[in-house]
Amino acid sequence: MTTPVAPLLSSPPVDSRSRARTLLMGLQDSICSSLAAFDGEGQFQEESWVRPEGGGGRSRVMKAGRIFEQGGVNFSEVEGDRLPPSILSQRPEAEGQRWFATGTSMVLHPRNPYIPTVHLNYRYFEAGPVWWFGGGADLTPYYPFLEDAQHFHRTLKGACDSVDPAYYTVFKPWCDEYFFLKHRGETRGVGGIFYDYQDPGGVLYKGSDPAGPAAAASAAVGMVEHDWEKLFQLAEACGNAFLPSYLPIAERRQATPWGERERDFQLYRRGRYVEFNLVFDRGTIFGLQTNGRTESILMSLPPLVRWEYSYTPEAGSREALLTEVFTRPQNWLDDGALQNRCAPHQAVG
Amino acid sequence: MTTPVAPLLSSPPVDSRSRARTLLMGLQDSICSSLAAFDGEGQFQEESWVRPEGGGGRSRVMKAGRIFEQGGVNFSEVEGDRLPPSILSQRPEAEGQRWFATGTSMVLHPRNPYIPTVHLNYRYFEAGPVWWFGGGADLTPYYPFLEDAQHFHRTLKGACDSVDPAYYTVFKPWCDEYFFLKHRGETRGVGGIFYDYQDPGGVLYKGSDPAGPAAAASAAVGMVEHDWEKLFQLAEACGNAFLPSYLPIAERRQATPWGERERDFQLYRRGRYVEFNLVFDRGTIFGLQTNGRTESILMSLPPLVRWEYSYTPEAGSREALLTEVFTRPQNWLDDGALQNRCAPHQAVG
Repeated sequence: MTTPVAPLLSSPPVDSRSRARTLLMGLQDSICSSLAAFDGEGQFQEESWVRPEGGGGRSRVMKAGRIFEQGGVNFSEVEGDRLPPSILSQRPEAEGQRWFATGTSMVLHPRNPYIPTVHLNYRYFEAGPVWWFGGGADLTPYYPFLEDAQHFHRTLKGACDSVDPAYYTVFKPWCDEYFFLKHRGETRGVGGIFYDYQDPGGVLYKGSDPAGPAAAASAAVGMVEHDWEKLFQLAEACGNAFLPSYLPIAERRQATPWGERERDFQLYRRGRYVEFNLVFDRGTIFGLQTNGRTESILMSLPPLVRWEYSYTPEAGSREALLTEVFTRPQNWLDDGALQNRCAPHQAVG
Repeated sequence: MTTPVAPLLSSPPVDSRSRARTLLMGLQDSICSSLAAFDGEGQFQEESWVRPEGGGGRSRVMKAGRIFEQGGVNFSEVEGDRLPPSILSQRPEAEGQRWFATGTSMVLHPRNPYIPTVHLNYRYFEAGPVWWFGGGADLTPYYPFLEDAQHFHRTLKGACDSVDPAYYTVFKPWCDEYFFLKHRGETRGVGGIFYDYQDPGGVLYKGSDPAGPAAAASAAVGMVEHDWEKLFQLAEACGNAFLPSYLPIAERRQATPWGERERDFQLYRRGRYVEFNLVFDRGTIFGLQTNGRTESILMSLPPLVRWEYSYTPEAGSREALLTEVFTRPQNWLDDGALQNRCAPHQAVG
C-alpha cells in the first residue's frame, strides 16, 4: 500500500496557526517600527481588543505624524462558528465548519499629496478541511509619477518571482480587477498585487471575472504546484517587500512643496478610497458581517475627505493625467508609450 | 355581471406616470426655489442627463451657499428591462417585466453645525402588474435640540395624519429601522418617516425585521385600505410638508455662532452619513446597480468629511448627548424624560 501524496502536500503543518500568527504579527512590528522611525514625530498608539465570539487583535494607529496624516496597522486573529455568506459562496466545503482567520492589514494616508496612499493585507484562513492564503498590496498616488508606479511594481514582482514567476503574472491583473470602482470606471490607483483563496488547487486565479485579463493570465500559466510552505513563503516575501517597495517613494517625495491645489485634489481623490472601501472591499464587508471591531475595520478611511459634484480636472493637467492614466490598468513595467505620455508631468515644484 | 371592486381599486389611473412625474418635478421646483430664496447667496445649478438604458433626469446642486455648504435636489425618471435583484427579492411579481421609476431626492448639508442635515425622497414604481410608492424624510442634527426633533416629527405627522392616522404610527419606527447603522449601533439621526412598497396590499410595513417595532406597529393598526389616489395624496402631503418641517429649524439656528469644536464634530458626524449611504442605503445601491448617473447618486455625500479613529465625546457634553440620545430611536413627541435629559444643553452660543 502506498501513501497518497496529494493529501500530505495539501495539509497544513501542525503548527500552521502559530506560524501564520508569528509571521503576521512580526510584519506588523517591522512595518510599525520602520514607519515610526521614518516619520520621526508620529507614534503608533496600540489598542488590544477581544472579540466576544472568539479571538481579538491589536490595532496600531498613528495620528497627525510629520509624514503620515494617519496610518493604521492592524493585526487580528479571530474565530467563529460559521463563515459569512460572502466567503461560503467561494468555499462551500467550509459550510458548517468552525473557522480561524489571522491577518495584518495596513493603510497609510500621507499628508503630502505627492506621497501616495498605500495599502497592504496578508491573511490566512482555516475552516475544517480547507485552508487558504490571501493578500496583496496596492499603491494609490494623487500625482502621476511613472517611476513610483514602476518602483512599487518592480519590488513586488521581485518578491513574487523569488517564490514562483507565475505569481506576479496573475496577481498583478487580479489586483487591477479587484481594486476597481465599477461606478466610476476607475481602478483605485496603480495597483500592485492581489490574491485570494490560494490553496493547493493548482489554478491561481479565483476571482469573479472568468473573461478578464487575470483569468486569461492564469489560464496561460496553467496549473501551478504549490503547497502550504510555498504560500507561506509568498506571504513572507511579499510582506517583507512592503517597506522597500514604499519607503523610497515616500522619501523621494516628502520634501516636495505643495499648496491648496494639491491638497484639494488629494482630499477629492481620497473620496474614491472611501467609496471603494465601503462599497466593494471584501475585507471591510467581511469585518462588518462578522461583527468585527468597527473602529479597526474603518481605520482605513482617510482622516479628511472631500466630495465635489461633477468635478473634472483641467484638460492636460497633472490631475487629468492621474485620472486618465493612473486609474486605469497599465503595464507599468513594460510600456514605452506610458513614458512619453507621462514625461511632461514628471517634474514638480 | 358585476364589476369586481378590488381590481379597480388596485389599478393605477391611466395617467399615473404623468401625474407622478408632475408631482415630483413640482416638488423639486418648489423646494429649490424656496431653498435658494432662503440661502440668498447660493444658486442651484441644473444639469439634465439622459440614461442610455432609458429615461433621464435633472440634477440641481447648490455649492458653497451662505446656509448650504452643499445641497442637491435630484429628479429622475428611468426605465429598464429588468429590476435589480435587491428589488425583485421584495417584488417577485415584477420578474421579467419592464419597469418605470420616478423620484425626487434631496440632501442638504448646511455649513452651520447647529443646522441639521436633512434628506427627503419620494418615488413611484411600476413594473407590469405591480406598482408602489415609497418615500420619507429624515433629520440628522449635529447638536441636540429637542424642539427641532419635535418640530420635524410634528410636521410630518400632521401631513401623514391628513391622509390616514395609521401612517405615522408605522412609518416613524420604520424610519428608525431603515436609517440604522448596524456596525455603529446608531440611527442616522432623529429619523422622521420612511415607507416603501406601498400598494393596495393592506399591510403597511414591508421592511425586513418581522420582530421590530415597525412590524409591531403595523400589526397593531391592522389592514389599512389604500389605493393609488390615497398613496398619491400621501406623497403630495409629505412632499409639501418638507419646507415647513425644515425651514423654521434652519431659520432658528442660522445665526448661532460656532467654532472649530462644532465644525470638527459636524465633519466627524458627517462620516456616519457617508457610511450609511455607501453601506446601507437602498436608493444608492439601486442607482449603482442600475447603472445610474454616479454623480447624481453620490450628490448626497457631504462636501467635507472627517474620520477619527476611536473618537469618543467628552462625558456630559452636548456631543455626548447627541450621540447617546439623538442617534437612538426615541418617542420625540411623547416622552417627558427626554425633556429633562436634554434641558441642560438647549441653550447655545
